[in-house]
Amino acid sequence: MKLVDFRRNFLNPTMSISYSPAPFVIARSEGQYLFDENGNKFLDCINNVSHIGHCHPKYIKNIQEQLPVLNTNARFLFDGLKEATEKLLRLFPKELRVVTWACSGSEANDLALQMAKIHSGRNQLYCLADAYHGHTDITMLVSPYKWNEHFRRSKDVTVLDTPCTYRGAYRRKENSSQLYAEKFTKKIDSKKGIAGFIYEPMQSCAGQIVPKDDYYKEMGRVVHEHGGVIIADEVQTGFGRLGKNFWAFEHYGIVPDIVTVGKALGNGFPVSAVICRKEIAESFHKYGIEYASSYAGNPLSNAAVSAVIDVIHDQKLQENAREVGDYVKQGFIKLMKFNHVGDVRGHGFFLGIDIVKNKRSREPFKELAINIRQAAREEGVLISVDGVNKNVIKFKPPMVFTKENADQLLDTLNRVIPKVLRQMNLQ
Amino acid sequence: MKLVDFRRNFLNPTMSISYSPAPFVIARSEGQYLFDENGNKFLDCINNVSHIGHCHPKYIKNIQEQLPVLNTNARFLFDGLKEATEKLLRLFPKELRVVTWACSGSEANDLALQMAKIHSGRNQLYCLADAYHGHTDITMLVSPYKWNEHFRRSKDVTVLDTPCTYRGAYRRKENSSQLYAEKFTKKIDSKKGIAGFIYEPMQSCAGQIVPKDDYYKEMGRVVHEHGGVIIADEVQTGFGRLGKNFWAFEHYGIVPDIVTVGKALGNGFPVSAVICRKEIAESFHKYGIEYASSYAGNPLSNAAVSAVIDVIHDQKLQENAREVGDYVKQGFIKLMKFNHVGDVRGHGFFLGIDIVKNKRSREPFKELAINIRQAAREEGVLISVDGVNKNVIKFKPPMVFTKENADQLLDTLNRVIPKVLRQMNLQ
Repeated sequence: MKLVDFRRNFLNPTMSISYSPAPFVIARSEGQYLFDENGNKFLDCINNVSHIGHCHPKYIKNIQEQLPVLNTNARFLFDGLKEATEKLLRLFPKELRVVTWACSGSEANDLALQMAKIHSGRNQLYCLADAYHGHTDITMLVSPYKWNEHFRRSKDVTVLDTPCTYRGAYRRKENSSQLYAEKFTKKIDSKKGIAGFIYEPMQSCAGQIVPKDDYYKEMGRVVHEHGGVIIADEVQTGFGRLGKNFWAFEHYGIVPDIVTVGKALGNGFPVSAVICRKEIAESFHKYGIEYASSYAGNPLSNAAVSAVIDVIHDQKLQENAREVGDYVKQGFIKLMKFNHVGDVRGHGFFLGIDIVKNKRSREPFKELAINIRQAAREEGVLISVDGVNKNVIKFKPPMVFTKENADQLLDTLNRVIPKVLRQMNLQ
Repeated sequence: MKLVDFRRNFLNPTMSISYSPAPFVIARSEGQYLFDENGNKFLDCINNVSHIGHCHPKYIKNIQEQLPVLNTNARFLFDGLKEATEKLLRLFPKELRVVTWACSGSEANDLALQMAKIHSGRNQLYCLADAYHGHTDITMLVSPYKWNEHFRRSKDVTVLDTPCTYRGAYRRKENSSQLYAEKFTKKIDSKKGIAGFIYEPMQSCAGQIVPKDDYYKEMGRVVHEHGGVIIADEVQTGFGRLGKNFWAFEHYGIVPDIVTVGKALGNGFPVSAVICRKEIAESFHKYGIEYASSYAGNPLSNAAVSAVIDVIHDQKLQENAREVGDYVKQGFIKLMKFNHVGDVRGHGFFLGIDIVKNKRSREPFKELAINIRQAAREEGVLISVDGVNKNVIKFKPPMVFTKENADQLLDTLNRVIPKVLRQMNLQ
């Protein structure tokens, strides 16, 4: 039975397959490349999880060496946990000093929301429209990106406008951040207050949404005025991906009360973490219910995390994201000469190209975005299409992506976009 | 800074440390043994996660060989996922035929509860008192084992009596299972019905609770009559641990609608799975919201799972659990000659010794259980103490535990129990 047919019959049918209806089998990977079963090489602009590159030698070595030594749960004491925790905490401002390990970004956000409720003594959660924070029951309740007409919302969750500078309600207002914060304030039931506000500083699944620089200061003020906890989800934006900042929250000049990390942290090994202020950890402790996990912080995960953080520094991957990312962004901006390329957003290796039916109406153009993705694949370049309207071409490659890779990507897009426009009779 | 002090300052303070206040540092592990930093060897009767044994050569080899080849998310196609899924499905009756992969037992149970709500179109969840099903927000709502006076319960969750044959409300009644089912029925709001009933067929954290043979048939009937989904959590009981059965649900002669597995499945690699009936997968599909995970079902997890399932078969570990487990249980039963050893429960490598203040009152005796654990540790044998009253000595070793290991364990308990009783002036 072919893999696609097998999946249709025996695996969760809701999980989509990349490049359906004509997906391909990946046989191996290396750095910023994937190879299919016939040996064809693809430039990978999709796998942000493979942050330090697919199959990185130091990462492989660390895990391979740990495997025959020890792997047990973190109720026992072992050295690797201290090393990984110290390395992780060094990446944060000193206010963020207590780590709880978990297995996935979803688990980390789930725990962060529980901590916010416990610390605040409240229930009301706030999130942004188009947000995605995970697949557990409670993280789905703050993930409007995923909702459809069947989804049952919670009365304890309030959805706030997405502060998109391209399509957001107040995008044309000079004081848009103040206006969003005022609208937020109006939605708060002052008797119930706020338990927590969870946000990706720059939204990923929503389509690389980059709010204005003063946005989170305004929003954060409202959260704290109403007793809430500020939770920054850095699962997709962290670890130097933005180039200019190691964390996306730094761009906005506020230190959140809780930060969650995942994906890049384990480079494909299932590990995530919640980093919080001391007082939040203390509330959780006073609450008196143990958070226990069979895997979180285990020695194999320690080995993965230590290697990832070392490699980010040793290979200066943040600097690479800044330099090469800037170069790619300039190239993307030039693509706006084409009809239907409406906007380019993001920083470093976190970029999006917004494909529209009409540059004035800014109406999303999903079919065109998907056809460009498909045409690029035929040329050996893998890019993804995402956003609530599935019209944003996303660039979020392994951080070892080079200037030569950038040239290949830009050259490919410069060739396939006009070709697809012609095929669709759009030029 | 010492590891314990480091943890106190920089790690989630709610996670307990085994053998506090005098824990020890584990340096390496092998099979059914742990070694501390001074080279002292301990017989491990605790790590049920290390199902096929710590650092199993075939398991290490499988993961080590996969590491340099490929590790990406399951939206791409690769061969390992099919192999692991096929191996897993072969372990279940044919009604259970659709797999969704996840990272932890908590994630698997979280998803199972979401699926139950989606399939039934209802919200009401039922669980057993003393149950533990995970650390996510919704799994905590069905985990009374963890609750304290601060915990905020959900009005959508109803807790049912634990059908313990040693302390349960109806333990003296011939028709106890019918009585529990009748009480269950009375708790149901017939307008709201049931979304799901989640249970460990044999409860682990609760203290190795083994309900009567006809219990789940009676309970399951009530669930289905009210439109609910039957969810068996086999995270701690599955994969042959019971010896007589590969799954605990088999002991009770009913096929659940959903089964969740974890722990043993990855032998320490964070991987879990939800296995369900076709119609439940179809409801989930019709619901139309994608369940996506960065790690679930990735090639590394496939390598771990395939090795675990192969080794269980190749080394006849289920048979070993039956033979050696029966032998240990006979030895445990002989310990009932001592004052305060009140009950012995369980099957195979899933056994519990209930320590009581008085054999007639059956009042739990936590301090004695903990002192026995401590004394055994000093003799090089690691056993755990659990149960809602923290008075049940638990035996849940790696499945490679031998008859010689059993003799060491039994010999140790036969020596330390009278010694501790004397020290506590109980004899």
